[in-house]
Amino acid sequence: MNVELINTGSELLLGRVLNTHQQWLCRRLADLGYVVTRQVAVADTGQDIEQAVREALGRADLVITTGGLGPTSDDITRDLVAQLLGKKLHEDAAALANIERFFTQRKRVMPVSVRVQALVPEDSIVLQNRHGTAPGLAMELKPNQFRAGGKSSWLVMLPGPPRELRPMFNDQVVPLLKRELPLESEFVCRTLRTTGIGESLVQEKINAPLAALVAKGLDVGYCAHVGQVDVRLAAHGEAAGAVVRDGEGIVRALLAKEIFGEEDELLEAVIVRRLTERKQTLALAESCTGGAIAHRLTNVSGASAVLLASLVTYSNAAKEKFIGVRAETLAQHGAVSEATAREMAEGSRRETGADFALSVTGIAGPTGGSEAKPVGTVFIGLASAKETVLLKQFNPYDRETFKQATANQALEMLRRAIFG
Amino acid sequence: MNVELINTGSELLLGRVLNTHQQWLCRRLADLGYVVTRQVAVADTGQDIEQAVREALGRADLVITTGGLGPTSDDITRDLVAQLLGKKLHEDAAALANIERFFTQRKRVMPVSVRVQALVPEDSIVLQNRHGTAPGLAMELKPNQFRAGGKSSWLVMLPGPPRELRPMFNDQVVPLLKRELPLESEFVCRTLRTTGIGESLVQEKINAPLAALVAKGLDVGYCAHVGQVDVRLAAHGEAAGAVVRDGEGIVRALLAKEIFGEEDELLEAVIVRRLTERKQTLALAESCTGGAIAHRLTNVSGASAVLLASLVTYSNAAKEKFIGVRAETLAQHGAVSEATAREMAEGSRRETGADFALSVTGIAGPTGGSEAKPVGTVFIGLASAKETVLLKQFNPYDRETFKQATANQALEMLRRAIFG
Repeated sequence: MNVELINTGSELLLGRVLNTHQQWLCRRLADLGYVVTRQVAVADTGQDIEQAVREALGRADLVITTGGLGPTSDDITRDLVAQLLGKKLHEDAAALANIERFFTQRKRVMPVSVRVQALVPEDSIVLQNRHGTAPGLAMELKPNQFRAGGKSSWLVMLPGPPRELRPMFNDQVVPLLKRELPLESEFVCRTLRTTGIGESLVQEKINAPLAALVAKGLDVGYCAHVGQVDVRLAAHGEAAGAVVRDGEGIVRALLAKEIFGEEDELLEAVIVRRLTERKQTLALAESCTGGAIAHRLTNVSGASAVLLASLVTYSNAAKEKFIGVRAETLAQHGAVSEATAREMAEGSRRETGADFALSVTGIAGPTGGSEAKPVGTVFIGLASAKETVLLKQFNPYDRETFKQATANQALEMLRRAIFG
Repeated sequence: MNVELINTGSELLLGRVLNTHQQWLCRRLADLGYVVTRQVAVADTGQDIEQAVREALGRADLVITTGGLGPTSDDITRDLVAQLLGKKLHEDAAALANIERFFTQRKRVMPVSVRVQALVPEDSIVLQNRHGTAPGLAMELKPNQFRAGGKSSWLVMLPGPPRELRPMFNDQVVPLLKRELPLESEFVCRTLRTTGIGESLVQEKINAPLAALVAKGLDVGYCAHVGQVDVRLAAHGEAAGAVVRDGEGIVRALLAKEIFGEEDELLEAVIVRRLTERKQTLALAESCTGGAIAHRLTNVSGASAVLLASLVTYSNAAKEKFIGVRAETLAQHGAVSEATAREMAEGSRRETGADFALSVTGIAGPTGGSEAKPVGTVFIGLASAKETVLLKQFNPYDRETFKQATANQALEMLRRAIFG
């Protein structure tokens, strides 16, 4: 199965926006067993879009386009494709009703210009847009006049905004693919997410034990993020389910401590869920991470049931004032020290009354390092009713990577405590 | 001038990583006057890379590839391109010395496998890698056997890691482009960044006043981010400098309050710089943004001279305890209210002794809204020695966008106060 993706939009080629569609669609498709073989971005010019669509249709069983379905003058994908395929446009009643409903619900007057979005090429399936006005379109080219031998192909056109594209893909395109472009053989894919262990060590631990399953068709992939390694297990064919299930069992047994979630789960979401279940609360005392840990936790809906406060005590005075770090400790050991991390964790737990308190203090750089404490040095503390645990780490990266890696290490320390 | 970009890497097509090269390179090139006409991502397979390079060389004056220059078995771009172009590989002494130095400096033994990276195709310019081991390569195909009429083209190959690619592009590729592929006419480009004003209003304010310059060749572009609109002024030709300068003058006069920076400057960086110059300090009291404002400010190196603390008082108890919000205020007006925002700002300023204190309290959603205070409601406070100013906003977006938009509004309120 040959799948190609075409992203349209001059803003992509001027570098004004990041192409998040590529990653999102490629990932979703790959996890369903449809690997994208080529992705192209072209400007909103008739010639470029037409050439890209024609070339892709000449090669692929499935071509997905994004963008260019809206009401403005640079939204030309729909018209161009209809012209290229020699299809007439007609107004679709359901699409028009959806556009009208969109404005009625928001108590806004519908501009005449948006009505153009209800025009669809003949013989196409209309994908209703529940989060916007431009419908998506799907059509089978049977025969596909651009392809050698006229073999049939599917063309799926999706709107540009991610909050419109993503639910449309999940709710309408995925069922269509399963129905109209079924994989030749069964496909099963599973991603397990680990933290607190490097990529090479993950490989070393699981490669040999998985060898027998790899011989039976298991495909093992790794993806390293900052402080996180994903293991992807996939297989095709009749035995795919069993092979992936057996592989997952082996990986889970060997990385029992390191696996924190599945598929797209985030470490912070796992922690919020677990603490919510246990009816336990958390406080943070952040210095070098500067609010990054609180920011990640509060991205999770429901975090307010768990997180009482994060005291981002960037200055020494704030460390003393809000969480009771002693002036002598700061003077004797310095703000970046195990002793300060301990007092920060214990102090924020005491002052908030939380069940757990995490603290971080370190040198993010690029300045502020010394021989004894180079840039990247960080101390993490975790205080609970039982004990205070301390960890020294070294993250000699650029400032933002340092913050992200440190936040991960702190959250992982907490996760191991609450899943222990 | 026709410029094409080819990103290689199976991880891109499996959706395991985000393609940040596309935006970065397209943006840098566009600002230099070289607009990318097509970007393609292909997997690390010989056939796909070869086909993409051959097709691009058939059309473009400049082809840039990323990735595939490293030492592992899936790094095949260098070999494939040499083969495609019929060029022999030889070991480059300077590239080898750079690789050896990389390991010596890190006190690590150089694995034999990395030596392959010093192999370069004949007649190519070696772009030294100051942040890694794989050198980049540049070569002029003269004639270019893939192009109609054999017109010459340049092929530039860059390593995959962004921290290696970006300085190599800035320091070595930009001078090469200016020398070897000069623009036919002068090109000037300027970006002004605004906040606190919507895209349509920006256009409404400046479109008519810029009309005369547009007639003289000024190109005006807009790019809307969350809470931020960039205005890009560009022109070609002999008068480009004057046209862009005059355009900038008009835009600066009309959007004097809204412009916070130029080119890639961030709002938080502008604030840290200004407060540092003024030797003034800042405290934050964050509720609904959950540390997002502190996180942004502390991404700026030198933030510790300015930011004393952010009290992320997510619970009501924390609001009372750390920044002295009164229980009666919370009971009478609620945590999301102008009265609470006022006490949060004034309390955090008082408790930290900062010159300025910003507070935010609101309903991020998706739950927690009511008829009177729907999801998206937010109150922002700014306390200074002079006064406390309060602002009500409505940001009915998804949770992360809500946090980002709110953070922007709060930072913008502070910016206007310190640049007033």
